[in-house]
Amino acid sequence: MTLQVLPLTGIGAVHPGDDLTEVLAGALAPLNPVSGDLLVVTHKIVSKAEGRVVAIEGDEEEFKRALVESEAVTVVRRRGNLIIAETEHGFICANAGIDRSNAEPGTMILLPEDPDRSAHRIRVRLDRSFGIDIPVIISDTFGRPWRRGLTDIAIGVSGLEAVIDLRGSTDWSGRELEVTEIAVADELAAAADLVMGKADGIPAALIRGYQGPRGEGRGQDLVRPPEEDLFR
Amino acid sequence: MTLQVLPLTGIGAVHPGDDLTEVLAGALAPLNPVSGDLLVVTHKIVSKAEGRVVAIEGDEEEFKRALVESEAVTVVRRRGNLIIAETEHGFICANAGIDRSNAEPGTMILLPEDPDRSAHRIRVRLDRSFGIDIPVIISDTFGRPWRRGLTDIAIGVSGLEAVIDLRGSTDWSGRELEVTEIAVADELAAAADLVMGKADGIPAALIRGYQGPRGEGRGQDLVRPPEEDLFR
Repeated sequence: MTLQVLPLTGIGAVHPGDDLTEVLAGALAPLNPVSGDLLVVTHKIVSKAEGRVVAIEGDEEEFKRALVESEAVTVVRRRGNLIIAETEHGFICANAGIDRSNAEPGTMILLPEDPDRSAHRIRVRLDRSFGIDIPVIISDTFGRPWRRGLTDIAIGVSGLEAVIDLRGSTDWSGRELEVTEIAVADELAAAADLVMGKADGIPAALIRGYQGPRGEGRGQDLVRPPEEDLFR
Repeated sequence: MTLQVLPLTGIGAVHPGDDLTEVLAGALAPLNPVSGDLLVVTHKIVSKAEGRVVAIEGDEEEFKRALVESEAVTVVRRRGNLIIAETEHGFICANAGIDRSNAEPGTMILLPEDPDRSAHRIRVRLDRSFGIDIPVIISDTFGRPWRRGLTDIAIGVSGLEAVIDLRGSTDWSGRELEVTEIAVADELAAAADLVMGKADGIPAALIRGYQGPRGEGRGQDLVRPPEEDLFR
């Protein structure tokens, strides 16, 4: 079967207090959602609709540094203006997820307070609009150690398994697989980014034909517990 | 435009010395490749065709440990049987990329010696078969710090930009983007993995409708130079 990734066009600017699900439903309608579809939404429009936006006061760089430090639970690394920090959600990323791109002039965008809850809310409302269960992923763009470039990953999930456990599955020769956990929600977010484009103003994509398990996975499933982590 | 990810079916087992491109061309033909398509191939069948397979001698765990240490340039972390190591290519991954899943019984699979060269060779031969330039990505499944689960990434690339530099692009509000480098080859590998499945014996996928720039990118472009890396 073929996997399809379809950009949601015509969404435009989103402001605090906007009814984001209504906006998304309007952009989804022309794609005629069917059972099995899932939706990937970049966190920026979610954060904006939820009012997770702050007005810059005083010197921008200084304001940003103070904001990053207040959003960070732990500063993991620091080099010049770059701060890699752990957020309250357990994400480790540049600037504790604070971003100025695609922000209104004079503002900065924070991460949603609870991206899993945001994803769940959108999913429940879409179900009411379309009468089908459309799983939702909220994505962000993260760097990673050792590799150049950024990729989109899932910070919030509702309606599908975020990590698939293949333990007990066998390969074609009958041998038990050594690779056991696949971060499918991150792969779906990455696939969606390929049609969105940072500069094109397309903040969401529909994925059609994904055969992986539905379920009650969460973005939090993708956060590796510190005690399992060799790189903290 | 829509991005499509199509699994290549019917490939079956690959053995040292097999003409992999002929096998791939046979599996591609029913999909009627068109200009703009690109191919993602998991490294395992590339390694097998190239004879990058070793027969296990003596105790399997001991043999594996010695093999990992001989393939590793640097051991980055070690916990129990798990070794995170840097390979000669500069990749940092579990077991220096050595894998037993989908290996013939009694063997282990190494990474291709030069995945960029492998990708290039396949691309040149496919061009001869189909008369169109089909960029090629060779993928592997890597873990990453801080996040649970593995994702597929690109270790070899031919015919497209592996990392897109958005420096100078602006967002919809006219502000210069802060996020400048997107690891599109990794995102393409991740998208391909969604239709492959570790247990299903589908080792390649065609991606249709990807609009990103063609060019002379390489998998090596995705290796962050140690001096830029905050996590070495």
